[in-house]
Amino acid sequence: MMSAARPPARDLKPLFDPRSLAILGASATPSKWGYWLARSALKGVTRRSVFLVNRGGKDILGQRTYQSLADVPKPVDLVVISIGAAGFEQAVDDALVAGARAIVAITAGLGETGRDGRAIELAVREKVRAAGALLVGPNCLGVADTVSKLDLASSEFGPGSIGLISQSGNLGIELALIATEAGVGFSRFVSVGNQADLDVTELIQSYTAHDPTRVIAVYAEDFHDGRDLAGAAMRAHEAGKPVILLTVGSSKAGARAARSHTGAMVSASVAVDAACRASGMLRVSSPREMIELAQGLLMPHPPRGRRIGIVGDGGGHVALAADMVIQRGLGLPLLSDEVAAQIGATLPDRAPTRNPVDLAGGGEQDFGNFERTVRTLATSGEVDAVLLTGYFGGYSQESLDFARRETQVALGMAAAVGESGRPLIVQSMYPASPSIRALRSQRVPVYADIQAAVHVLARLIEHSEQAPWGVPAMPQPVAQRHAPDGYFEARNLMATAGITFVKASQVSTLAEAKARAQEIGYPVVLKALGASRKSDLGGVKLGIQGEADLKAAFTEMKASLRPPAFSVEMMAAGADGVELIIGVRRDPSFGPVVVVGMGGVYAEVLQDVAVALAPVTEKEAERLIRSLRGAPLLIGTRGHAALDLAAAAQAAAALSTLGSERSGFAEMEINPLLVTRQGVMALDARIVRKGGG
Amino acid sequence: MMSAARPPARDLKPLFDPRSLAILGASATPSKWGYWLARSALKGVTRRSVFLVNRGGKDILGQRTYQSLADVPKPVDLVVISIGAAGFEQAVDDALVAGARAIVAITAGLGETGRDGRAIELAVREKVRAAGALLVGPNCLGVADTVSKLDLASSEFGPGSIGLISQSGNLGIELALIATEAGVGFSRFVSVGNQADLDVTELIQSYTAHDPTRVIAVYAEDFHDGRDLAGAAMRAHEAGKPVILLTVGSSKAGARAARSHTGAMVSASVAVDAACRASGMLRVSSPREMIELAQGLLMPHPPRGRRIGIVGDGGGHVALAADMVIQRGLGLPLLSDEVAAQIGATLPDRAPTRNPVDLAGGGEQDFGNFERTVRTLATSGEVDAVLLTGYFGGYSQESLDFARRETQVALGMAAAVGESGRPLIVQSMYPASPSIRALRSQRVPVYADIQAAVHVLARLIEHSEQAPWGVPAMPQPVAQRHAPDGYFEARNLMATAGITFVKASQVSTLAEAKARAQEIGYPVVLKALGASRKSDLGGVKLGIQGEADLKAAFTEMKASLRPPAFSVEMMAAGADGVELIIGVRRDPSFGPVVVVGMGGVYAEVLQDVAVALAPVTEKEAERLIRSLRGAPLLIGTRGHAALDLAAAAQAAAALSTLGSERSGFAEMEINPLLVTRQGVMALDARIVRKGGG
Repeated sequence: MMSAARPPARDLKPLFDPRSLAILGASATPSKWGYWLARSALKGVTRRSVFLVNRGGKDILGQRTYQSLADVPKPVDLVVISIGAAGFEQAVDDALVAGARAIVAITAGLGETGRDGRAIELAVREKVRAAGALLVGPNCLGVADTVSKLDLASSEFGPGSIGLISQSGNLGIELALIATEAGVGFSRFVSVGNQADLDVTELIQSYTAHDPTRVIAVYAEDFHDGRDLAGAAMRAHEAGKPVILLTVGSSKAGARAARSHTGAMVSASVAVDAACRASGMLRVSSPREMIELAQGLLMPHPPRGRRIGIVGDGGGHVALAADMVIQRGLGLPLLSDEVAAQIGATLPDRAPTRNPVDLAGGGEQDFGNFERTVRTLATSGEVDAVLLTGYFGGYSQESLDFARRETQVALGMAAAVGESGRPLIVQSMYPASPSIRALRSQRVPVYADIQAAVHVLARLIEHSEQAPWGVPAMPQPVAQRHAPDGYFEARNLMATAGITFVKASQVSTLAEAKARAQEIGYPVVLKALGASRKSDLGGVKLGIQGEADLKAAFTEMKASLRPPAFSVEMMAAGADGVELIIGVRRDPSFGPVVVVGMGGVYAEVLQDVAVALAPVTEKEAERLIRSLRGAPLLIGTRGHAALDLAAAAQAAAALSTLGSERSGFAEMEINPLLVTRQGVMALDARIVRKGGG
Repeated sequence: MMSAARPPARDLKPLFDPRSLAILGASATPSKWGYWLARSALKGVTRRSVFLVNRGGKDILGQRTYQSLADVPKPVDLVVISIGAAGFEQAVDDALVAGARAIVAITAGLGETGRDGRAIELAVREKVRAAGALLVGPNCLGVADTVSKLDLASSEFGPGSIGLISQSGNLGIELALIATEAGVGFSRFVSVGNQADLDVTELIQSYTAHDPTRVIAVYAEDFHDGRDLAGAAMRAHEAGKPVILLTVGSSKAGARAARSHTGAMVSASVAVDAACRASGMLRVSSPREMIELAQGLLMPHPPRGRRIGIVGDGGGHVALAADMVIQRGLGLPLLSDEVAAQIGATLPDRAPTRNPVDLAGGGEQDFGNFERTVRTLATSGEVDAVLLTGYFGGYSQESLDFARRETQVALGMAAAVGESGRPLIVQSMYPASPSIRALRSQRVPVYADIQAAVHVLARLIEHSEQAPWGVPAMPQPVAQRHAPDGYFEARNLMATAGITFVKASQVSTLAEAKARAQEIGYPVVLKALGASRKSDLGGVKLGIQGEADLKAAFTEMKASLRPPAFSVEMMAAGADGVELIIGVRRDPSFGPVVVVGMGGVYAEVLQDVAVALAPVTEKEAERLIRSLRGAPLLIGTRGHAALDLAAAAQAAAALSTLGSERSGFAEMEINPLLVTRQGVMALDARIVRKGGG
């Protein structure tokens, strides 16, 4: 839900580094969550007091317990609530009485189960905020901070620079497992659950100001105020802390699953794409891709150009890598004579040195050739990044001596690229070997899969090229008595925004239709108004040449569709024009989103749309239209004249503002907008009311 | 190279299961290949005699050695040659004298270094064949057969059902590593090296007849006679042994200068795609994808439809899986009340049971719920495959008891789907756990990554839906004095195949041009002939309305391009038509390949081509055109009339036959072919000679 009320940034120290904490519902039974929580929390006991509260009062893990929170020595900064839903409100009251400034609510069975639960969450939030405290959850899996040694999540979050925010506990665990394998770790982890108080946006803000966090990873199903979130993500991006976003609900079935999961309203996928374009968030589609991309973002020197140098010891691997680099649209420059000669100096004669570089056995003969080649490439000025692929890492399997030597070479390569200011990305057949661990310790990203390595490289380069568009401010809302409905109301409203429509008149009888057609001049278009104004239902007849045609069309539509009225319209001469679709959709989380796409026959063939958070300026609208695959049809290409892109952009910008000022509708759309050499002409208009069809 | 001479199928038993073998160049030095070979070969010593030959004569690995092959007790079925290139020919002679029926030549530095090396290989091949023997390599990494316990590759190829053929040693090793991790293994492995005698095609034939091999995996850089290979792959497919192909070289096209529009779009890669479409080969783009797909192909019951049922214990995982299934174009049917109720019976009330199914904690409470749910789904008749995602596998981490119970459930699930005749595909956060090993032992494919699981599922379904097109026979070659060249020669040749061209006349002077234009009738087109007949050089002027226009165009072209001659042509009225590009490209390995694509402005916007091995029938050509993304523009869609698809198909089929009958050219192309409501009209023609420009 969109909401204007966001509390000012709060101090989250009581949550991430409490001086003392208590666990309500600590348990001695190993199958219970209260046992794992207690065990994890006690790991931080050298840094803070940990009190275990259990009504039975028996010792847990050799630690004394308290029968109620009231018995615990004060102050208690943080209280973890891990008891049933029935006792939840009382437990929050007790925690606040005990002076808690942060509460982590594991308790499930509240907001995600329906209205009653949500009401309890709202009431609790007010109490917590009134007390100057904050609350994580409920229905969450816990919190961890590897710097302050706080572990209330019982997962193995190794230390590192990724700040993780997850709305799914199991996905959080999966991310921890994948990260461990990849040699990266976490600064902080919060499982946000139902976000009754603390939400994803506030955590992004907090992580942005948290020094040990360098990349922010978010799994979210519910965005609350999506614009706020996008704004926070953009400020994180500007602070040099990119936000990676994994979300669900791009399919209806996914939405179905997610809604029942945390009670979240999942935003349509396009709105998320618009938010990413606005804020610089990097969207991924699986937990694995999230960690792989985080590895890349944590490199000391991200790539600043598209020229890739490939190194490997073996023709198959370098050829595969070269194909993928080209397929992803990156460059593989032919190296100069000088650089090639320098690389070739210590390699076998047959070694290809022009890029890709195949050591052709020279790496096996002398591991130092890997280091020399990578160094030469990285410092040549002829490539922007070095991609090492194949066997490297495998020599460590042979003997301890080989492992030592290969590790030295690995450290040498990392140092060489560090000095060069250019990145090294590695694909290795032996991603778990000691030499690869050495590379990872120097923040060189290593992948088992060449596709992953090239994919990450391409995303990093694209990310560096595309500055965020910015999160637009919402214009002042315009008061309106009722949301417009009906074809002519929609046309009239859009016309007030300065959009030119084709000449049209509403008619009820054939005689009226004939009279209006006469005025407009043949050929004309006849449309049946109401629900049946769709060409696939036979409600639109183009190119009516004269009265006989008009009578036939009118009679047939009237009989088959029984529309409330008709529209007689001028037939736009569109031989040299191209049709666009422009529209604004109101997303429940992200608000108005502008959509432009190729229209008419191209809509079906190209399925080509671009989206942005609305409103957009004319310049942004033009950029949006230029990003369509079908843009050459508008910009002018062989045999096609340049069309009036500026007018199209003007119309899209105007509609985006109109749709941002007005609420009460789900969609506003012009389909088609005919773009000609001079100007544009809207040939149809549609407004769908909120909850309408 | 294409070559007609393929020897009849040979008995490869001496290669894969020799009664005795000798290693020339066995070594006691652990850094040498001859040492690893000896060590590996000796593992099979209970099944066959292994003789080590080393000029030094010292014991190796406690085994006596022979100073020359002549000293080895006869007979010797197989000889491995692992010595320098200088001694290679002599070693082959010695092996044949010793009665060897198979030779594995590790020796490098021959055909891959140039012409001299290739000459040696040819001479050796003749000798070997004359002796009734066969040779693998040279420049190969060895051979393995896990059934006959032959290991001459020194890699850890675990036993299994994949028959592997690899032209890269290191990629073979990488595939072995990935397969081990994935719990699948190999029946046979051959590193083919330079393929001087035994090649990929003959090995596919051999594997097709080899019972323990159920899937054939090929990494090839050089296809020799690509049609032969495609034919062998199709026969393997028909025998129920799908061929997975990994190859390289799609980026070579980038470096090669494109001589025509088709040349730019079509690369060697496209010829491979055509071969896959013809033969049913499954192309992959990385070693990892190869093994992942092999896992899927080795399932007992491949999917026979697109309806997927998703199960997981956790909303995040099932929502992600659902999104991916929908994105890949698969179906996620809403389950019936009956099935949903049956699934829900033992799950928590809040568990979504309609598909995706989220056990919502019910799996953790009772592992049996995984088995019950998977069984109910698989036997419901409402889904064609079951996808299990998320935490399953993780309970085994908790305790030995949990591991035992989870493993039982795993085996129960495998049995349930086995009985149902429907497949189960699994994504697990804990792919190395005992319960997952149990699933794999029952040939249930398990992936760490949900993207991989869904990708494999989609490929298997697409594969089951698309029957191979068949590898077309080459027509009788047509004798020709010289390959046609020049615009009018090309037009005339293509016209003989029944393709209709727009009216045109060759002219040299302005006076001639005016006379011809008068005859044809304005508007006309003027083209500059020769190398400059390209619109982007200004060599084509459309829509010339009268003599003044013609004079201006003629004068300008003559001055700027100095062409040898001109063509004056009728201006085709193409308002309602759509332009196609049709062409035939001669691939050095696969022979003629027919290419159809959207032409004109769509070529740039859609970059939309379809390919097949030539020649194609009219029916196949039509299917090819219908497979274009732009096909709705031809078939008829809103506002566009249906065009003469049959005539377009006829022209493409005719050109494909013409291009298959004639050799001596690299490319034949008609760009554009104007397709109208009635008939087609070729507006240009181009033939590029072999090696020409």
